[in-house]
Amino acid sequence: MQRLEDRILKDGVVKGGNILKVDSFLNHQIDVSLYDEIGEEFHRLFKDEPVTKVLTVESSGIGLAVATARAFGVPALFAKKNRTRNIDGEVYSAAVESFTSGITYTIIVSKRFLTTSDHVLIIDDFLAKGQALLGLLGIVNQSGASVAGCGIAIEKGFQEGGKLIRDKGIRVESLAIIDSMEDGIIKFRR
Amino acid sequence: MQRLEDRILKDGVVKGGNILKVDSFLNHQIDVSLYDEIGEEFHRLFKDEPVTKVLTVESSGIGLAVATARAFGVPALFAKKNRTRNIDGEVYSAAVESFTSGITYTIIVSKRFLTTSDHVLIIDDFLAKGQALLGLLGIVNQSGASVAGCGIAIEKGFQEGGKLIRDKGIRVESLAIIDSMEDGIIKFRR
Repeated sequence: MQRLEDRILKDGVVKGGNILKVDSFLNHQIDVSLYDEIGEEFHRLFKDEPVTKVLTVESSGIGLAVATARAFGVPALFAKKNRTRNIDGEVYSAAVESFTSGITYTIIVSKRFLTTSDHVLIIDDFLAKGQALLGLLGIVNQSGASVAGCGIAIEKGFQEGGKLIRDKGIRVESLAIIDSMEDGIIKFRR
Repeated sequence: MQRLEDRILKDGVVKGGNILKVDSFLNHQIDVSLYDEIGEEFHRLFKDEPVTKVLTVESSGIGLAVATARAFGVPALFAKKNRTRNIDGEVYSAAVESFTSGITYTIIVSKRFLTTSDHVLIIDDFLAKGQALLGLLGIVNQSGASVAGCGIAIEKGFQEGGKLIRDKGIRVESLAIIDSMEDGIIKFRR
């Protein structure tokens, strides 16, 4: 997606450890009109799928999932990290290791919100090692729902996550795929 | 806001410990059109303020802040809990105790995204003891920005947070104020 790639080149900052900071527009401060355009683009890509729910994991996926859910006219749903006092009852859960923080946490979704009749589009801001997507796919599997695919804003094409998920036969649509960012120079896949 | 109150009565579940579960539409599964209406209502209430940014704290405030920021045509910004590898540099920070989890955590906002020229509308899904709002107000104070006010979806009027914040001279607009939920019966303030 041209607007997203342009914005990454303009405002993204490459840090050591394969970190790309996009916190001025994507995952700390949020450019709402860019979010809306991303949501519309995921709708364009997946509009032939009978999507019933848009699923993500907190926190930075939430706004993108809401924008996408709006385009489809369906509810958004976000997996929560860890268990707090006000999710009780039965949950689907998966263990996820965060690329960014290095911490392993549990993500959970209430069983009330995913059923065998759901067709789920999974959304996230980044795809790197694929651990968050694997966790979300595990939760959808547990529920018996089907998967429409995964919509990702920024895929780090030089890490293994994209191949890992696509090799499972899951459709992954990434709006910007970065093939390298050596010496701070971002190169997109064509 | 009538639609929000109606939805709370229809789908909210009162639990022990003054917990109101609204996870089927507000903070786990999300009714996107309700979010949009909430965002428009906050805009209606605060439209005379020259708001430059809409601030919240992850996670359940994010979608509401994005909906509100869209109505104002300004960026949304969410404070992050704890420090992860990809927020570096200088940050504003505050300690917050969560009513829901009982855990005290640090919330941070990059200094790049709040300056003395900002006029900030703070948004959150719940106001109970007011600790999250106090933390966000502290961050805005540190930045030298001014505060337009606080927009809250659901205020627990029987807890002290609303009075605490209003007594500081901060305008707080809550779309549904619950005065009691004894025996599972929700009573709204008129």
